[in-house]
Amino acid sequence: MKALLNQKSVKTEQALRAIAHMPTSSLAVLMDKDFAQSLTDDDFMRIAVLLAQKSYDEGGCPIGAVIVDNTTKQILGKGHNTLVQDNHPYSHGETSAIKDAGRIDFSDTTLYTSLSPCEVCATLLSLRGFNRVVVGDVTNASGTEVFLQERGIQLDILEDEQGIALYARFCSQKPELELEDWQGVSACRSIANARSLT
Amino acid sequence: MKALLNQKSVKTEQALRAIAHMPTSSLAVLMDKDFAQSLTDDDFMRIAVLLAQKSYDEGGCPIGAVIVDNTTKQILGKGHNTLVQDNHPYSHGETSAIKDAGRIDFSDTTLYTSLSPCEVCATLLSLRGFNRVVVGDVTNASGTEVFLQERGIQLDILEDEQGIALYARFCSQKPELELEDWQGVSACRSIANARSLT
Repeated sequence: MKALLNQKSVKTEQALRAIAHMPTSSLAVLMDKDFAQSLTDDDFMRIAVLLAQKSYDEGGCPIGAVIVDNTTKQILGKGHNTLVQDNHPYSHGETSAIKDAGRIDFSDTTLYTSLSPCEVCATLLSLRGFNRVVVGDVTNASGTEVFLQERGIQLDILEDEQGIALYARFCSQKPELELEDWQGVSACRSIANARSLT
Repeated sequence: MKALLNQKSVKTEQALRAIAHMPTSSLAVLMDKDFAQSLTDDDFMRIAVLLAQKSYDEGGCPIGAVIVDNTTKQILGKGHNTLVQDNHPYSHGETSAIKDAGRIDFSDTTLYTSLSPCEVCATLLSLRGFNRVVVGDVTNASGTEVFLQERGIQLDILEDEQGIALYARFCSQKPELELEDWQGVSACRSIANARSLT
């Protein structure tokens, strides 16, 4: 079986989008080991942002994540926020990618996330023993980077301008949805009540 | 439509087990509003422990949780750990119950958990605005009770002897599974490596 993407293939946006959308367990039919080895931090962050774009296109929160084996560069798990899509109060990019990866050892993997992790996800990444976390947007986000470093995780910031612009657009268009995703429906109600009193 | 369990019904173990096993969205066909109003903290904790027992019987980690409306005493969500059942590295009793409840306001609800919440779940309960958390087992657990209280959540301990015995039996029978559930596969590997060096 010859994969569509091999060492001679160009890493076009179309190729990365196909990787983002194809089920993880089927990726071997799309790209071979040499192509995986050619993927860089920038490419994996682009895939995370393309997953965020997929979620945005579905009406959801635009945050994506990819988990990669540090040695083989194989993608072990990926996903995006599904608050809207699954009616799930806590289904973030990170938890979707972790669920997709399943019960594996994360201690030699890197998690790429299009947005800085929330406090819950940062605690989870620490307790699941991730080696490295790469964050694509610290402009719109929570500031858990110091916490992750204190827990011994290698933390790199790799800003993706398209991802930052996408998340800023979402925050501007659907501020209540963004607040619900971070702090739940109760936080939205508190703010609505405060507004009604002024 | 007349429900099987009404204000005249006795709250037998069989009745509580039926509540634990029936899908939340179908509970109205099993019990009416008066029966729900008759349920006490002890009963909800029993249901959480019966969910833990269900998970144990399936070969999984025995931890269950129930989310209840403080006023109507209606069950809004419930579930149990599905690490084994769903091959999911972070699917705890609390997250299963939250997923089951969906995108609701948790600020007037109580979450009953058969086991003290892990650090990730404690952070999640805080950020989703729960009003009250009742813990059934602090003997075998993490000690996040102070954290929850500091975050403004009413915290009650309501020890359920059967639940404590069940979790202790699980820890004795499957210590590696218990460790994986709290700290991931990498923690299991670290301990195995340390053992091989001694």
